[in-house]
Amino acid sequence: MSSNFYAEKTPDAVKNAKGLHLITSLTPNGRKVHILLEELKDVYGLEWTTSLIKLETKEQKKDWFLKLNPNGRIPILVDNTQNPPHTVMESSAELVYLASTVDKDYKFWFSDPIEQSEAYQWLIFWHASGQPIQGQYNYFRRNTTDPNSHATERFRDEVLRVYRVLEAHLSGKHTGRSRKYLAGPGEGTYSIVDINAWAWIRTYRSIGLPEDEIAGLPHLGQWVDRIADRPAVQRGSGERYDEEVHPELLIRTD
Amino acid sequence: MSSNFYAEKTPDAVKNAKGLHLITSLTPNGRKVHILLEELKDVYGLEWTTSLIKLETKEQKKDWFLKLNPNGRIPILVDNTQNPPHTVMESSAELVYLASTVDKDYKFWFSDPIEQSEAYQWLIFWHASGQPIQGQYNYFRRNTTDPNSHATERFRDEVLRVYRVLEAHLSGKHTGRSRKYLAGPGEGTYSIVDINAWAWIRTYRSIGLPEDEIAGLPHLGQWVDRIADRPAVQRGSGERYDEEVHPELLIRTD
Repeated sequence: MSSNFYAEKTPDAVKNAKGLHLITSLTPNGRKVHILLEELKDVYGLEWTTSLIKLETKEQKKDWFLKLNPNGRIPILVDNTQNPPHTVMESSAELVYLASTVDKDYKFWFSDPIEQSEAYQWLIFWHASGQPIQGQYNYFRRNTTDPNSHATERFRDEVLRVYRVLEAHLSGKHTGRSRKYLAGPGEGTYSIVDINAWAWIRTYRSIGLPEDEIAGLPHLGQWVDRIADRPAVQRGSGERYDEEVHPELLIRTD
Repeated sequence: MSSNFYAEKTPDAVKNAKGLHLITSLTPNGRKVHILLEELKDVYGLEWTTSLIKLETKEQKKDWFLKLNPNGRIPILVDNTQNPPHTVMESSAELVYLASTVDKDYKFWFSDPIEQSEAYQWLIFWHASGQPIQGQYNYFRRNTTDPNSHATERFRDEVLRVYRVLEAHLSGKHTGRSRKYLAGPGEGTYSIVDINAWAWIRTYRSIGLPEDEIAGLPHLGQWVDRIADRPAVQRGSGERYDEEVHPELLIRTD
């Protein structure tokens, strides 16, 4: 363990953790990683420990946290089986790290280089072109008094454009072949690419988009419901990650 | 070659290309891929062909293009050595694809799994947390009459926050060790992680940020200048990708 790795104020729950430790909160980006951990538990019996942060306390902006992730955001994964412990920031990089270190049978990722390249493209498409836009849309619709402000309209239109790209991909509009999942050969197989996008898109019916636009995304809607049915997906959004149910997991420094 | 791969209107320059073919424009995302191709030419003698698109013509929103990239954006890489040809969208996925297929000696990428994980984190950090924000900042400062509008201020502040994260990473603020490049052991080694971010950050002195804020980013400034000195980086922004110099590379359908 590097002397630079933990700070004096790093909470004991983090500093003394063994194996995989996740510092998280019940946000879309947190959910991504919770879901994959739960899936890996079902297949491989994976074990890990969890610390929860209340974002309002700004623990994620304090020095002890910035040593683990200089970007000051959750979730962070710490792999204490490495020496020094290996930290992973950026939720989709965490999914890739877990897939490549734990998912030896490629249940949620792809071994074929071309399939892997396709999967990366859709993983990065959502992380770079989808979620930053949906995040800004959420911000502006909640923080401006005018629901038709330039910024709110711009981001609402772009969220819809991105959803239509996914609808076209799933419906086979450009290829003639419909798909059940975002990546994988044929109609696709469930993977971290779906988990990555689903954690954000799951709420698409209730974020203020026009009804007729929502009705125009039938394949996306079926995809959302198909993934929501998985037990690991439900557990990843559940009480294990809720600080009201598990106050003993909450970390708070002075 | 799949019958679904090209459309009737796909330009001959694309349809008949052999080997690697890049469809691009002289934008930050285009530059990323140009630069890596030029670097790979210097090391491995890589060859490829190029088609240029004028974004104002909206070729990238036409059906023939959407079959190659349903997101309707440049650059797209087409690898005609695969059967069917393999297309790659999302600029940082293109960098990863080129690194993993061409860069066999890991001159611009990392073979060690932990170093590779660190590199992914900074690659995705910039692509997901950096460039979408800088892109929105550019939009709002150019398209709103009020330079201090809520949206312009929000994105200016966030661009600066992201730059400060990079400055802290390069200066060693949280680790005690300064770095020359964003990824790699010790002080780092030049890689696709740098190319990915540099193509956007190169202009940081002239995008309307306050002088005192720019002065507070000395390590970032040295990093920008260090990379700008590379011949391949200069060629990647040069006349080979300029439709005024090479009108024969421009593609335009009816």
